[in-house]
Amino acid sequence: MDIATVVGLVLAHLLIIGSILMGAGLAAFIDVPSLVIVFGGPAAATMVAFPMGQFKATGKIFKKSLVFALPEPPSQIEQMAEFAALARREGLLALEEKLGTVEDAFLVKGLRLVVDGFPPEVVRDILEADVAATMERHSIGKAVLDKMGEVAPAFGMIGTLIGLVTMLKNLADPSQIGAGMAVALLTTFYGAFLANVIFLPVASKLEQRKKEEGLLREIMIEGIVSIQNGDKPAMVKEKLKAFLPPSVRQAMDAEAKK
Amino acid sequence: MDIATVVGLVLAHLLIIGSILMGAGLAAFIDVPSLVIVFGGPAAATMVAFPMGQFKATGKIFKKSLVFALPEPPSQIEQMAEFAALARREGLLALEEKLGTVEDAFLVKGLRLVVDGFPPEVVRDILEADVAATMERHSIGKAVLDKMGEVAPAFGMIGTLIGLVTMLKNLADPSQIGAGMAVALLTTFYGAFLANVIFLPVASKLEQRKKEEGLLREIMIEGIVSIQNGDKPAMVKEKLKAFLPPSVRQAMDAEAKK
Amino acid sequence: MDIATVVGLVLAHLLIIGSILMGAGLAAFIDVPSLVIVFGGPAAATMVAFPMGQFKATGKIFKKSLVFALPEPPSQIEQMAEFAALARREGLLALEEKLGTVEDAFLVKGLRLVVDGFPPEVVRDILEADVAATMERHSIGKAVLDKMGEVAPAFGMIGTLIGLVTMLKNLADPSQIGAGMAVALLTTFYGAFLANVIFLPVASKLEQRKKEEGLLREIMIEGIVSIQNGDKPAMVKEKLKAFLPPSVRQAMDAEAKK
Amino acid sequence: MDIATVVGLVLAHLLIIGSILMGAGLAAFIDVPSLVIVFGGPAAATMVAFPMGQFKATGKIFKKSLVFALPEPPSQIEQMAEFAALARREGLLALEEKLGTVEDAFLVKGLRLVVDGFPPEVVRDILEADVAATMERHSIGKAVLDKMGEVAPAFGMIGTLIGLVTMLKNLADPSQIGAGMAVALLTTFYGAFLANVIFLPVASKLEQRKKEEGLLREIMIEGIVSIQNGDKPAMVKEKLKAFLPPSVRQAMDAEAKK
Amino acid sequence: MDIATVVGLVLAHLLIIGSILMGAGLAAFIDVPSLVIVFGGPAAATMVAFPMGQFKATGKIFKKSLVFALPEPPSQIEQMAEFAALARREGLLALEEKLGTVEDAFLVKGLRLVVDGFPPEVVRDILEADVAATMERHSIGKAVLDKMGEVAPAFGMIGTLIGLVTMLKNLADPSQIGAGMAVALLTTFYGAFLANVIFLPVASKLEQRKKEEGLLREIMIEGIVSIQNGDKPAMVKEKLKAFLPPSVRQAMDAEAKK
Repeated sequence: MDIATVVGLVLAHLLIIGSILMGAGLAAFIDVPSLVIVFGGPAAATMVAFPMGQFKATGKIFKKSLVFALPEPPSQIEQMAEFAALARREGLLALEEKLGTVEDAFLVKGLRLVVDGFPPEVVRDILEADVAATMERHSIGKAVLDKMGEVAPAFGMIGTLIGLVTMLKNLADPSQIGAGMAVALLTTFYGAFLANVIFLPVASKLEQRKKEEGLLREIMIEGIVSIQNGDKPAMVKEKLKAFLPPSVRQAMDAEAKK
Repeated sequence: MDIATVVGLVLAHLLIIGSILMGAGLAAFIDVPSLVIVFGGPAAATMVAFPMGQFKATGKIFKKSLVFALPEPPSQIEQMAEFAALARREGLLALEEKLGTVEDAFLVKGLRLVVDGFPPEVVRDILEADVAATMERHSIGKAVLDKMGEVAPAFGMIGTLIGLVTMLKNLADPSQIGAGMAVALLTTFYGAFLANVIFLPVASKLEQRKKEEGLLREIMIEGIVSIQNGDKPAMVKEKLKAFLPPSVRQAMDAEAKK
Repeated sequence: MDIATVVGLVLAHLLIIGSILMGAGLAAFIDVPSLVIVFGGPAAATMVAFPMGQFKATGKIFKKSLVFALPEPPSQIEQMAEFAALARREGLLALEEKLGTVEDAFLVKGLRLVVDGFPPEVVRDILEADVAATMERHSIGKAVLDKMGEVAPAFGMIGTLIGLVTMLKNLADPSQIGAGMAVALLTTFYGAFLANVIFLPVASKLEQRKKEEGLLREIMIEGIVSIQNGDKPAMVKEKLKAFLPPSVRQAMDAEAKK
Repeated sequence: MDIATVVGLVLAHLLIIGSILMGAGLAAFIDVPSLVIVFGGPAAATMVAFPMGQFKATGKIFKKSLVFALPEPPSQIEQMAEFAALARREGLLALEEKLGTVEDAFLVKGLRLVVDGFPPEVVRDILEADVAATMERHSIGKAVLDKMGEVAPAFGMIGTLIGLVTMLKNLADPSQIGAGMAVALLTTFYGAFLANVIFLPVASKLEQRKKEEGLLREIMIEGIVSIQNGDKPAMVKEKLKAFLPPSVRQAMDAEAKK
Repeated sequence: MDIATVVGLVLAHLLIIGSILMGAGLAAFIDVPSLVIVFGGPAAATMVAFPMGQFKATGKIFKKSLVFALPEPPSQIEQMAEFAALARREGLLALEEKLGTVEDAFLVKGLRLVVDGFPPEVVRDILEADVAATMERHSIGKAVLDKMGEVAPAFGMIGTLIGLVTMLKNLADPSQIGAGMAVALLTTFYGAFLANVIFLPVASKLEQRKKEEGLLREIMIEGIVSIQNGDKPAMVKEKLKAFLPPSVRQAMDAEAKK
């Protein structure tokens, strides 16, 4: 799982919960009907806004892209160069034994196509179609999360208005004003928290992840085709490094010099 | 009717109404003058903002595009392939008997043009003009709904200001302050609800629907022309699948393998 | 005058005034100094933001484009076809007698140029320069109204702040708090009303009107040049229909079939 | 000085001050620490946001572009035609005597280059570089003012929060609550006033001014080069009129006919 | 260090602190839990939004680009012309002795490549890759700071809501209301301060700095390659001045004339 996401989410929750514990205590901040409105509302509005298929796909993409780690491009390039060396020494079929050691499903699929003897254009076409489908899913996931992040504060406000009206109707008992106001404000609090700690940052991370995954898949496709063409390992490496952003390329060169 | 829209709208209403029932009860949240301002105001402002024809078209497009379901592209492609097989076996006229079983009016119109012997360019021109008119109506409908979603919270605030001023003028009787404030806040509540549950999500759904309908009509036009040309069913299918987004194409291929 | 604008404005005023009358009565909502700030402020800020010429032009374009109705494109196309028939039957000079019956000044100007024997390129150049000047005025009018709609709520808030500070300074007499607050809130109310009922919707209508007028003038120019070239009425009609948006063209064809 | 700017600024100040005088009186609205925060804060934030050179340039461009009037393009075109007539009658050197009567420094510079016998390409290059530098300064000035207009309301809020916290800490003496609140709200009032009456409208006027000055300089450069080429006055006029926006060209033609 | 950033930050802090000292005193404005939420929250949310590497890079780029001063382009151009004169007089190797006197690491690297005899294309490629990596880091730094500036006010609001709910739950003791409210408002104050004084202006300065550094590096690369080609000092100067914005070029020419 992406380490920054975990650290960020845990840190944000610790800060908020710690700050609550120093005050009125957690119980004062938990109100089930308020939670239901602020969690359910954005989900409902997003269902109205998107087709059911796209809404459902979000949960999957969310989990898949945040939980499973992608290999780092530089170490991936090293691995591709090793495979290239192996393929030149012992032939493409020798890659088959290595498939068991590869964790990434996309890479396994690509190498198997090579081992099975498909021509390079076909391998490239199949893999690129696969990447396009993944990119599309990322985009939908980001759009849905952005919508939820936009709607969550609105449902927070709707909940607070319901709470205020309810409290004002029962103004006869002034001792209840404080408690009523406190509950009314909880939905605004939940809405701001959900939007700014969860929905919008995760949507932004999905965007970053989409870029990273797109880059990694491009490197994999070029590497697989290059291996199939029997390129020398050094050449495979040089070709693939051209895909890296300049700062990563610099770091990789600095590493190599040591 | 689009299932996600129904589920989303019902869910949002249940959440809000449920939460109201747990508090002051529904009666406290219904105020006819407030409803009139927040429902009537955005309609009035939208009439000022758009020509009458566009304003009226919105109701129609709203109903038409949300109530009538469109066939799913994959099943539509299967149907086109079946028609192609029939046309190759028994000639184009054999399609006429099938017209009664086709639900979609656009497809019936297109197939009838083929049965009636119009040349392919004419069929394509007529159908494309029809699609262009539909796309234009969707765009207008989305623009009108976006405007309403933008204006509804403003009318909510206008209503609340009227309520507050009224309440403040009658401050002599302090026992009425709570009730006055409660009524004043209702319009803000209505405005936030209308904008975030109805207008803006439905405008977004119309946009999605426009894309879906555009894609489906493109598939139908290509399919009809392909049938008219006497293409083989497998070729019709292959041509039409090229229009699908990568993820749907993958799902369709996975289905076919089973 | 544009019917939707009238209906929308009247409806919005009825809603607001009706709702006020049901509460504290109109007198409570009229405060001359507040009105002066919220009407005068946006005008002053817009003068700072735009050159004097553009500021003054707005009133003119506002009145001209909302008060005078434009002919509907389909009926205009019919008229152009009639003129074409007349010109072919009796020569271009026969159009002169018709000039008195034409209401639209632009069309009169164009036809007179034809009657006066100017060559088609000159007629087209003169008329296109005229249209460009009108389009430019519409754009300036829209920019000025958008600015006013942006600034009006800010002046509403400025007025309310003045009212609040004034009230707080006189806090010694608590019986005046309610009245002071009520007056303070009036400017916010005026600002929201002006922006959302008048300035922004009218700016949007000007944009629509600009599109409509641009289209109509394009049709007129093509029609005049086509008449001058001696085209057949049916051909004039077909040429001009190509300018219509698809949905209007469909409606016109449906009408013709009846 | 640009007349609309003066009228707008004076009008806005009269409205606000008049409205204050009708209430609590000016003294209640002047609080030196509040003024220091709301005037100093945006300046400080803008210094952080821009290099010192750009920050300083803003004052100069502000003064220069709002205080000195530019000649109107139509009268400028007339003048260029007169110079062209003079140059054709008596030679380019005859322009030297006229230089003393020309107020605009840019025009003087351009004509002197002509009198001094520089070739047309050099004259054009020098003048265009001069215009580019002016346009660049306008852009920087607008960016800095836009930033100040964006930050001023935020500093208004910061000041109000400081005032509120201060007041709440001294809650023991309830008689001071009103005065404390009044002072706290002043910074919000100053921030809204500065942003909506000064910074943002003046930034918008600078943009307009940049367009006007760019157009005028283009006319001057073309005119100077045309004079240098010995073009006839009527031709100079016709060439330069092509730069005018359509509505100004129409007005100029209408004037000429009288 | 960039002088405007220092002056702006110091000025903003003086204004705010001075204004606080005139009121309730600094102690009333320091609340450790509030500080932790408003400083920690944006950091946590930004970690969720960006990969860890980008989050960490921000601190470095922040420090590096604001603390170390860049040479001014005009003086840099003079220095390049001096190096060109030296290289023409005594050969490229003579530059080696000068390396110790050059402060800028990028320039040292470039000149060393020249002294070491790398061909011009290689020198250019290496230096351009270095610039691209720096530009990329600036972009990431700006994106992260913009996100923090967007999120800081939201965490201010979250903190205030926590404070309000806590206060409302303890309403039994009315003497604590003022103190509770004051503490609750502190997080909103911190959030507004952080966003408007630190995060957003510094992000804007990074953008300016990126432009400045990009320009300076371009001048250095062109200058180094020009020196390597043995261009005359005057020609080096003329080539490099073409990179300057028009206003700086004018100022430099004016300086030279004196």
